[in-house]
This record gives sequence, structure tokens and C-alpha cells, in this order.
Amino acid sequence: MRLLQALNPFRDIETVAAHCDLMCGVYNPAQARIEAESVHEIAKKAQDSDDPYFKQRATFLKEERAELAKHHLWVLWTDYFKPPHVEEYPQLHDLFWRATKACGDAKKSADPADGQKLLDLIDEISEIFWKTKGGKPDWMTG
Amino acid sequence: MRLLQALNPFRDIETVAAHCDLMCGVYNPAQARIEAESVHEIAKKAQDSDDPYFKQRATFLKEERAELAKHHLWVLWTDYFKPPHVEEYPQLHDLFWRATKACGDAKKSADPADGQKLLDLIDEISEIFWKTKGGKPDWMTG
Amino acid sequence: MRLLQALNPFRDIETVAAHCDLMCGVYNPAQARIEAESVHEIAKKAQDSDDPYFKQRATFLKEERAELAKHHLWVLWTDYFKPPHVEEYPQLHDLFWRATKACGDAKKSADPADGQKLLDLIDEISEIFWKTKGGKPDWMTG
Amino acid sequence: MRLLQALNPFRDIETVAAHCDLMCGVYNPAQARIEAESVHEIAKKAQDSDDPYFKQRATFLKEERAELAKHHLWVLWTDYFKPPHVEEYPQLHDLFWRATKACGDAKKSADPADGQKLLDLIDEISEIFWKTKGGKPDWMTG
Amino acid sequence: MRLLQALNPFRDIETVAAHCDLMCGVYNPAQARIEAESVHEIAKKAQDSDDPYFKQRATFLKEERAELAKHHLWVLWTDYFKPPHVEEYPQLHDLFWRATKACGDAKKSADPADGQKLLDLIDEISEIFWKTKGGKPDWMTG
Amino acid sequence: MRLLQALNPFRDIETVAAHCDLMCGVYNPAQARIEAESVHEIAKKAQDSDDPYFKQRATFLKEERAELAKHHLWVLWTDYFKPPHVEEYPQLHDLFWRATKACGDAKKSADPADGQKLLDLIDEISEIFWKTKGGKPDWMTG
Repeated sequence: MRLLQALNPFRDIETVAAHCDLMCGVYNPAQARIEAESVHEIAKKAQDSDDPYFKQRATFLKEERAELAKHHLWVLWTDYFKPPHVEEYPQLHDLFWRATKACGDAKKSADPADGQKLLDLIDEISEIFWKTKGGKPDWMTG
Repeated sequence: MRLLQALNPFRDIETVAAHCDLMCGVYNPAQARIEAESVHEIAKKAQDSDDPYFKQRATFLKEERAELAKHHLWVLWTDYFKPPHVEEYPQLHDLFWRATKACGDAKKSADPADGQKLLDLIDEISEIFWKTKGGKPDWMTG
Repeated sequence: MRLLQALNPFRDIETVAAHCDLMCGVYNPAQARIEAESVHEIAKKAQDSDDPYFKQRATFLKEERAELAKHHLWVLWTDYFKPPHVEEYPQLHDLFWRATKACGDAKKSADPADGQKLLDLIDEISEIFWKTKGGKPDWMTG
Repeated sequence: MRLLQALNPFRDIETVAAHCDLMCGVYNPAQARIEAESVHEIAKKAQDSDDPYFKQRATFLKEERAELAKHHLWVLWTDYFKPPHVEEYPQLHDLFWRATKACGDAKKSADPADGQKLLDLIDEISEIFWKTKGGKPDWMTG
Repeated sequence: MRLLQALNPFRDIETVAAHCDLMCGVYNPAQARIEAESVHEIAKKAQDSDDPYFKQRATFLKEERAELAKHHLWVLWTDYFKPPHVEEYPQLHDLFWRATKACGDAKKSADPADGQKLLDLIDEISEIFWKTKGGKPDWMTG
Repeated sequence: MRLLQALNPFRDIETVAAHCDLMCGVYNPAQARIEAESVHEIAKKAQDSDDPYFKQRATFLKEERAELAKHHLWVLWTDYFKPPHVEEYPQLHDLFWRATKACGDAKKSADPADGQKLLDLIDEISEIFWKTKGGKPDWMTG
């Protein structure tokens, strides 16, 4: 038991949260990650193409995917993270602010590098997230 | 000119922002405020009613309105506010975090007091917002 | 009391409406106005730009904002206004028809003048709306 | 040719409209009709049931369908009908106003009669619509 | 009675289905058909135009309509059709797969022929659908 | 190289697909899995609760999550899988049909067992999916 708590210092926090939280408690940064991968791939494919019709579609499809990535990040920030997490990881607010702004940057830019920057910020968030959960579920790693 | 800048210390920031921002630059906390008013009114009307059908509808309609208020707040936080604003108003991240969490609380609760708490937090955000803009537009005040 | 009624001739109508209306009663033409401002600003920024990627994004983002303005106008027309309003303001149906058609025109056109025409029609609607309410709330004018 | 025009007095109007209309020109009141049928059927099934879980789902699913019916009606009113139609059918504005208000009434009420009232108003609109088109397409009648 | 059953071999199935189905039972391939008509018309109008602004709008509006056609087809496939239908029409899965893929093809292509191919597949589905229902309702054919 | 192909027999198919596919190529059954987890958890929490307000919210929130799971499954079926996959896994159409129908069942039922059944079907799909990809990406397993 103590071992489990050592692995997951937020275990108690979450039990507390469970009492005041009405809903399902299912959060996973994979949702933002998958949309951000689309953003990145679309930008790369558009860059490699010289078909103006394809490039037009890439522009608005990238916009939609970046908006979804942004939404998933906002939900994580507001709904999953609790004050004790912010005490432990004081960079959280700024990190989410930069990550959601990076979604906007990836809309505004046709450069795949902006998609990569977004992926990197989501990976930073994921690392913290999985630490607070004590590890990934089996269906991801298995 | 100097007088205008005195009234709006963010004037220069915004001019800078205009160069890197692709989009329309139209932000207004009234969007979140109006949805939060619905949240509050729905909770009050549901509390005053003893019609179970009405109360059921109130529950899911309040949920929708609170989600829209949350969305408008997220957009303001990520898209409107820039680092110099956060330097001037260091409470911004925490204020938006509490306000978006208050949207969740107003979903989870049937108590109109949670709607009022949300309205109060939006008013705090609005006050800062309009200071950074140097005042409200004529169509609001006129 | 009579003074208040003089200021707001629809006061009684609304009390009646409150009995048959299930929901929140919160309406505000500011919602349509803010989206229409975006439509107008996007058209102006696109006109001033010669970046084809920016102009493409402007086209579909303007479309989205015009659709939202249209939706907010439709809701006002159907849900807020009642037969006694139409008796007092017989131009209401035609005014809303022209305003929602102006949303379509602002989609079809890249000319900022179409955004301005939409803003003007929304201001005409707003003037009538606030007369029926007896004035704007403090959070707008204050 | 004159025969065709006799069958469809709006034929010329539509040709004109085609020049200023950017988009597809495909309108069909069947879209509103199908959603309104759902509204009606859901109300009937909920009335016949005494399962509270089923009745709860019926309430919010009816709400969604009524919103879609309303949206399809608004689109027809604003986007399909043109001033010459209103000259020919001066009841159009009021008819659409009552039909979209009937969508709201069908949300507020658990009574299937409100769904039937909505269906009747959509049938009135459909009759006018198909007159202006000169008849239904083969894929509907065939 | 036997005559009716001869006309509609699925009559019994549907009665059974009605017992386990919670919801409204209203399905109509007209929903997919109408969106697919838009897809086809938009592609034709874009092909005939040499206005780049119009063509841009056509690209993303066609995308939206094709997505709606796809959604309506998915709903029919999953929610309306039952195992006995698939026994009677073993081509159903593949037909829906090709029809929903045709929605994707009509997004990817500016060629109106892809819209026509989608319309043809929807007509194949409609023919089966109306056979399982024993014919179209009066409001369509009347 | 031959080893890689042995591990992923679809490698060539995908290269071919890449030539005719306009878009990003990012698919991941985790999207459906995460929504289905919510469906399951919501049903469990509602079952354990005797707060009618909480149970009402659970009903419509579960409905939304099940709809999202369904959508993600439909997209995988139509957009990711290609004819050679169906040759290799002839059960695919029926598996997706049962999985998307299981989303509907999980809406209709308050029993967590229906959420579990959905999770099991998604796991069956995931197993096939990851075989066709030659394994999961590092960000999932790492």
C-alpha cells in the first residue's frame, strides 16, 4: 500500500476528488496527442504537395484538428488537475497556456514545426499527468 | 495620444499582437456573462418549480449553457491575454482556472448560488479585461 | 410603478410570457453583435492582406462567425419576441429576415461593407430589443 | 415553355436567384419534416412508457430533434425564400414564426399533440415550398 | 394481412425491433440523399466558376455536406438495419462501406462525378430501405 | 526490410493508400476506447448513487460519450480500413456493426455491463488495428 502511494503521490487527492466530482473521472492526454499528430501530419503533407485543392483542404482540416487538441487540453487543465497538483507542479498553468496557444499557432502557420512544438508541449503535460496517475493503463502499454 | 496610452497601458502590446495574430481580434467577456446568466436563471427557475419534467429540462439546459460559458472563458484566457497582461495581473491564470471550474460546479449543482459564484468570477475577469482595453465600446454603454 | 411601465411598455407581456416559457429568459443582442464584429474585422484584415494562406483562413473563419451571428438572430426572433412586440413593431419579421440574409451575404462576399451592413441591421434590432426591455443591464453600461 | 412556367411561377425568380446565390440551391422541407416526426414519435413513446429512465432519455432526445427541426426551418425561411415568394405568399413570415415557435413548444411539452401541431405547420410550409418549385423530385415520389 | 406481409417481409421484424428499441424509430434515407445532392451541386457550381473565392467556399462547404451525408448513412447502417435485413440483403455491409467511403471521395475530389457516384450508392441503399418498410410515406409521394 | 513486412503485412497496402488518401493518416482506436471508458464509469457511478439529480446528469452525459465512441468507431471503419484488411479479417464489418450497436445499447441501458460489452468489442477492434499497423507507437507504450 505504502509502495503504491510512493508510486502515486496523488492517490489520496484523487480519492478526495472522487467525493466532490460528479462525473466519470476518465481523463487521458492521448486525446490531445492524437489530434496534435493530425495537425502535424496535415502540415507535412500540405508542405509536400503542390495541389492547391489539397492544400486548401489541409488548411481547414488542420484548423479543426487544432481546435480539438485545444479543447482536450482545456478540459484536462480545468477538470482533471486540482490545487495539490499545482502545488507539486507549479509550472502547470503556464504550461497549459503555452500548449493551448501552440494550438492557435499551429492554425495560423503552415509550417509543420508548429505542429511539432505542440506535440512537444503535450508530451510535457502527459509526463506530469501520468506521474499523478501512477502510470499508464494496460490497454495503452500492453 | 499619450493620454490614450495612459488610459490603456496595453495599447502597444495590442498593436504588437496585431502583427502576429491572424484573426479578428474581437473578444468580449459579455459572451461568457450572458451564458452564465442563463445558468443562474435556469437554476433559480428549477428551484422554484415542482414540475419534474421542467426540472429535467433545466438540468440538461443548464449543462449546455455552463459548457458555453466555460468555452468562452477558455478562449479569452488562451487567445486574448498575452504575457504582459499576466505580468500586470499575476492572478489571471488562477482566476480563469477558478472561473472555468465554477462552470463545472454549476453543472454539478442545482443550487443557484453556484451560478452566482460563476457570475462574480466573470465580473472579476471582465473588470481586468476592460482595463486592458481602455474601456467598453459605445454599443455596450450607449 | 406606473413610471417603470411607461419606460417599459412590454413589462406586462413579459410577466405573462414568463408563465408559459419554461426556460431562462436571458436574451441579449450582444451575442449576434459580437459575432458580426468578427465577420467585419475578418473581412477587413483579409482585404488588407496579400498572404493567400491568411486569406483562405479568413474565408472559412468568417463563414463560421456569420453562421453564429445568424443563429443568435434566429433565436432572438423565434424565442424572445412575442405577438404584442410584432404589433408594436410591425417591421420585426422583415428586419430579422434582412438581417439573417445579411449574414448569408457576408459569407458570400469578401467585401467588409457587407459586414458593416450586417452590423447596422443588428443595431436596428438591438434598439427595438432594449426598448422592449426598458434599458440595458448595469453590467453592460457600467 | 409557357406550360412549364404556368406550373412553376417562380421559375424565373429562381434563375435570377441562381446568379447571386453562391451555394448549392438544394433545399427540401423533408429535413424539417423528418426531425419533427421524431419529435412526435418520441413524445408518443414516452407517454406510453412508465420507465423513468426511458422517459428521461426521451426528454433530451426530443429536445435535440426539435432543435434540428427548428434549424432546418430557419434555413428554409432565410436562405430559400426570396421577396417575390413573400409577395405571392404574404403569410410566409408569420407561418415560419409559428412553426419555429412550435418547435419550442414541443420541447417544453411532453404532450404528443404539440409534435402533431408542428408536423401540421411543416406540411403547410411544404405545400407552399413545392408550389414554388413546380413539384417534387422523382426520387421522392417514385 | 398476408398480403401486407408479402409486400413487407420485414413487418414482423420491425414489430420485434420496436420492443427492444428505446427511441423514435424514424429513419429516412432522404436525409443522406439531400446532403449528397448538395455535395453534387456544389461540385458542379465550383467547376463552372472561375472565381477563386467562390471555389474556396465551395471546397469547405462541400466537405461539411459530405460529412453530414456520411453521418446519416452511418446512422441508418448501425441503428435502423437489423440482422434479418442483412440475411435478406447480404450486400448491406459492403454497400454502406462503399457509400460512406464515397462521401470521403467526394471530399477529396473536386469532380462532380464523385458526387454522382455517391448519389447512385444512396439510391441503391434507399431502394433496399423502402423495400424493408413496404413503401414510402404519403408525405413523400403525395 | 522483409522482417518489417513480416511484422506488418499491411505495410504495402498503406503505402498504396497514402497515394490516394488526401488526409493525415492518423487513426487510433484509443479515441473510441477513452469515450467507452467514460460510458462504463458513468454507468457504474450512477448505479452506486441514489441522488436523482446526479443520476439524471449521468443519463445524458453517458449518451454524449456513447455517441462520441460510436463516431470514432465509424471513422475507423470507413476511413482507416481498406479492402485488403477486410480480406484478411473477414469479421471486420460485423465486428464494427456490433460495436457501434453496442454504443446504442449502452445509451439505452443504465447497466454498466453494457459499457463493459462495448469496451470488449473495442478491444477486439484494437487488436486487429494494431496488427495492421505493426504495433503501437512509443508514446503509448513508453
